[in-house]
Amino acid sequence: MSLKLIEKHRSFGGEQRKYTHYSEVLKCEMTFSIYLPSNKEMREIPLIWWLSGLTCTDDNFSQKSGFQRLAERYQVAVMIPDTSPRGEHVADHDGWDLGKGAGFYLNATQDPWAKNYHMYTYIVDELSAIASTLVPYFSGEESIMGHSMGGHGALVIGMKSATRFKAISAFSPILSPARVPWGIKAFSTYLGEDQAAWKKWDASELIKEGGMPPILITQGTEDHFYREQLDETHFLKNAEENNQIVHYEKKEGYDHSYFFIATFLEDHFSFHMQHLR
Amino acid sequence: MSLKLIEKHRSFGGEQRKYTHYSEVLKCEMTFSIYLPSNKEMREIPLIWWLSGLTCTDDNFSQKSGFQRLAERYQVAVMIPDTSPRGEHVADHDGWDLGKGAGFYLNATQDPWAKNYHMYTYIVDELSAIASTLVPYFSGEESIMGHSMGGHGALVIGMKSATRFKAISAFSPILSPARVPWGIKAFSTYLGEDQAAWKKWDASELIKEGGMPPILITQGTEDHFYREQLDETHFLKNAEENNQIVHYEKKEGYDHSYFFIATFLEDHFSFHMQHLR
Repeated sequence: MSLKLIEKHRSFGGEQRKYTHYSEVLKCEMTFSIYLPSNKEMREIPLIWWLSGLTCTDDNFSQKSGFQRLAERYQVAVMIPDTSPRGEHVADHDGWDLGKGAGFYLNATQDPWAKNYHMYTYIVDELSAIASTLVPYFSGEESIMGHSMGGHGALVIGMKSATRFKAISAFSPILSPARVPWGIKAFSTYLGEDQAAWKKWDASELIKEGGMPPILITQGTEDHFYREQLDETHFLKNAEENNQIVHYEKKEGYDHSYFFIATFLEDHFSFHMQHLR
Repeated sequence: MSLKLIEKHRSFGGEQRKYTHYSEVLKCEMTFSIYLPSNKEMREIPLIWWLSGLTCTDDNFSQKSGFQRLAERYQVAVMIPDTSPRGEHVADHDGWDLGKGAGFYLNATQDPWAKNYHMYTYIVDELSAIASTLVPYFSGEESIMGHSMGGHGALVIGMKSATRFKAISAFSPILSPARVPWGIKAFSTYLGEDQAAWKKWDASELIKEGGMPPILITQGTEDHFYREQLDETHFLKNAEENNQIVHYEKKEGYDHSYFFIATFLEDHFSFHMQHLR
């Protein structure tokens, strides 16, 4: 394995690390970040996954959310993947909502994307195997959270492996990708025009299966992507019709930024820890 | 006054704002950030100044420190200036430790710097007047903190107006600029070769005057600038000889980054609030 530690910072008693490695799944060099709490008592510790939004790398959450304070308080490791395959030879697009920085956490089937854009398998298989070697005293318990495109990713990945993840949460997620511009653009590009293929990557479809982990969603009312891209109506209707409990909360005056995430992250960690221990 | 609000984010109940304005002192367009706590009870609130380090803008502390949680908890406003004059017509230097992003919080006397590089007067006069109009229910009480070059700035500005600032604190500050490469380079460029002129911008000299506000300094032991740029020996010796109490603490394993600042910022806010109320 080509895993290489490229950064290490002490943070709130634990360690914020950054690694690069060659991904066999994505066929390119990748970077990710991980936080390891101090774990002075050498207890078994769980792992929370964080998936970031469009244009982000592993740095946004690491540097802007202040999550390390909470991860150390709760003694939980946090894994932060990048948002797409990277590198000169990887297909890209002029827009910021497609191609690099916009992998949508799915496995692409259309050329030229099918060669590298397999963020789903990268996270659930390859990066998961790496995480389990990096977290000392790993309890095997996992949960997943994310923001915007990464909120979509957390919901889709969490629901596709509903027995593996103990809780799912999202800030301002894309809840019905097949009905909004960001999702339609990404799905038609990565998966093709046949909308039947879109359903297995659509949180509003997956939730119909029922039996999902507990879900918490937080949305700011002043988020300027809210009406066009992040509408919750269809998702919540499907959840209700299938007896899936979703804690959906709106926060007055908050926008789409990390200032919003940082404010309510403590609620999300608290929610996850209720189900991780 | 040309003050223009260019960003506003709700954060931990309060507001994180960014403004631009034309500075008469610096003779250029400037940007700064300010946090206003919710102040629901409409009490009088104090103001903490944050001065950033080399290469920073007002964004680093705003986005990476998580300070808003503490400012809201303590109901204190926080003012975050940029680190130098800005703009096409402002003198600059190839290196990252001189020119733009490296104003050193002093008033330059040497050409071509003397035209714009007056960060000291900009902060203590012009930006202070603006701050007092922006903070509702401002109590008039102020304190100052900073990091690295901004730690030097906080100490120098705080000590030059020892009755105005109720407390001073710094993370990994340049304590003896006249004895270290960063300071010698900046002082000889901005102030000229006559070292007599350096003394009024040197924390290790100013502290000899005694009667300074309470001072807290936190330094990481794994900071790779520590030995060469941030040595504390001379400053602490001068403090002790003049009966000035300085709380100087080293933190094992921490580096020069915002991961370090975020970890110990709660201690600094707590220290400031003891003296602000």
